[in-house]
Amino acid sequence: MSERRKAPTSVDIARAAGISQATVSRALNGGVVSDETRARILQISKSLGYSPNAVARGLVTSRTGLVGVVVSDITNPFYPEFLEEIGRTLADRGQQMLLQNGHAGDQQEAVELLLQQRVDGIILTAATPGLGILRDLVRRRFPLVLANRTVDLACDSVEGDNAAGAAAVVDHLYGLGHRRFAMIEGTAGTSTATQRTAGFLGRLADHGIELKDEFRVRTDFRYEQAFTGTERLLDRRYPPSAIFCHNDLLAFAALNVIKERGLRVPEDVSVVGFDNTLQSGWKSIDLTTVDQPLAAMAARSVELLGGRLAEPELPPRREVFPAELIIRGSTGRRRPRSRS
Amino acid sequence: MSERRKAPTSVDIARAAGISQATVSRALNGGVVSDETRARILQISKSLGYSPNAVARGLVTSRTGLVGVVVSDITNPFYPEFLEEIGRTLADRGQQMLLQNGHAGDQQEAVELLLQQRVDGIILTAATPGLGILRDLVRRRFPLVLANRTVDLACDSVEGDNAAGAAAVVDHLYGLGHRRFAMIEGTAGTSTATQRTAGFLGRLADHGIELKDEFRVRTDFRYEQAFTGTERLLDRRYPPSAIFCHNDLLAFAALNVIKERGLRVPEDVSVVGFDNTLQSGWKSIDLTTVDQPLAAMAARSVELLGGRLAEPELPPRREVFPAELIIRGSTGRRRPRSRS
Repeated sequence: MSERRKAPTSVDIARAAGISQATVSRALNGGVVSDETRARILQISKSLGYSPNAVARGLVTSRTGLVGVVVSDITNPFYPEFLEEIGRTLADRGQQMLLQNGHAGDQQEAVELLLQQRVDGIILTAATPGLGILRDLVRRRFPLVLANRTVDLACDSVEGDNAAGAAAVVDHLYGLGHRRFAMIEGTAGTSTATQRTAGFLGRLADHGIELKDEFRVRTDFRYEQAFTGTERLLDRRYPPSAIFCHNDLLAFAALNVIKERGLRVPEDVSVVGFDNTLQSGWKSIDLTTVDQPLAAMAARSVELLGGRLAEPELPPRREVFPAELIIRGSTGRRRPRSRS
Repeated sequence: MSERRKAPTSVDIARAAGISQATVSRALNGGVVSDETRARILQISKSLGYSPNAVARGLVTSRTGLVGVVVSDITNPFYPEFLEEIGRTLADRGQQMLLQNGHAGDQQEAVELLLQQRVDGIILTAATPGLGILRDLVRRRFPLVLANRTVDLACDSVEGDNAAGAAAVVDHLYGLGHRRFAMIEGTAGTSTATQRTAGFLGRLADHGIELKDEFRVRTDFRYEQAFTGTERLLDRRYPPSAIFCHNDLLAFAALNVIKERGLRVPEDVSVVGFDNTLQSGWKSIDLTTVDQPLAAMAARSVELLGGRLAEPELPPRREVFPAELIIRGSTGRRRPRSRS
């Protein structure tokens, strides 16, 4: 990418050549232009003092300047924050975001549609192991970055330290005296859910605690599923005193159920999320959660893709960002109501 | 669009012709294919019983299948909900979303970038009157739909009934006994802010109430601005008993300030938003707000654009969706704390 960025802008050339900016831009992005126009653009850019090689590369590659981005649920506040930074970083590189939003079942199609639009590369934030098309992309050396969720493939990836984050949740809650835990889990098989579950259960085991199956709520990272799951947990004869949720969206659902029932947070039930979304810090919500550096992860995803476009033969890079517990008002010691 | 949708899918043709789906799709979207391939696709689709005219139209137009969508702030929960439905409706039509996210200053550039990618049309959700490029687009008859925010141009638009919604807020609050009002306003000059202000002030005037300037907080629809604005309102010797916010995001900020100060909602201060985002209905937030039918408005924007692509000479259509007050827990009668 670095050489392309030094190329003249379409505005510069269009002005000097007296042709439309759209045409110049199309030519620089590998689109369709006549041989005559192509020659003219090369000549003009040379006369403007730009490296003819960089321009020629833009003219002969089939780059579209489009980057496909796949998310699983744009109404989960994690994704808008992630996309905002991805969009900003792409713009800095002269690229644009072709957005596909869809739940797991649609992701194969989402990737196919992006390929039909001849995107230069794809940032996939919601990989699942069963996604066969990813294997094809890696085999074809198609520029691909897995962000947030990863699968076991030889491609670039960016993720948070999910297991360490979940273990820190146990330490915090155990230290507050909690012994009756529940966990609201994300989509089975995703790396985020798998690692968060492993970190949570592993650290509980260190404390000699086993989480029984009836205290594990399985979801597809959907608000409604966490809502009904929390209802079931609270309906139990001995409900949990602390609920760890695999992301903030699930935790928001848990908090809402607890408040609708007139229970107190954290005196009756403590709740922890994961992501440290903007909303989690709002006073109305005030959620203890695990921070993932969303903006840094998003920006790094774009950078890795840029590096891959510039040097396709680079070995795959896997980057893990630290996860940090952010303690807020939704966790505390359990305080039974006074009977007076 | 309707004729294009009756065209065979790229899967059907690819299978019958024994060529790749990507090639067929490119051809149908007006991309680059050899004359031979083009002829073959026409022949195959005829043999499959599809209207050769519809196919030919796809082959000869310069359609890219890309629709540009411009939003001003993707972390405002209004937009993810809007985009989710836009994405779904575009997908039904075989189109994809090129997303540009950016605040007012960047929108001219956002539109230019979309044009460089040869989008078939643009859905702009954050129009401002000063946006010169919109005038150019309309003059060139470029397919454009203004959604949510409108400006006075001869193009298709979809918006909520902002003035009626704001007037309903006054009726509700006045009926609860409120007389000391404040308003946290959105970006000056936008149709949404202008109409919501007019509706609110107009109905207050009907009740003989004038809103003094010190009770009007000007923002650019930004959370932080509403946060500090609410602080200033509450610092007043006689703070307002009811705050109307021009959207839910601003109202969330107001609620958070009120809660951070240990004040009660609604006993000390009532708060009203606008948009009826998913979050506004959460028990932790429980915000009285004005419903705009976001999903219907989003879907209709895509339909209007489709109609415009099919029939460029249609007269401009302006559609206004009803706004409805949704009463929740953030509004009530003011109840001074007992002095006992």
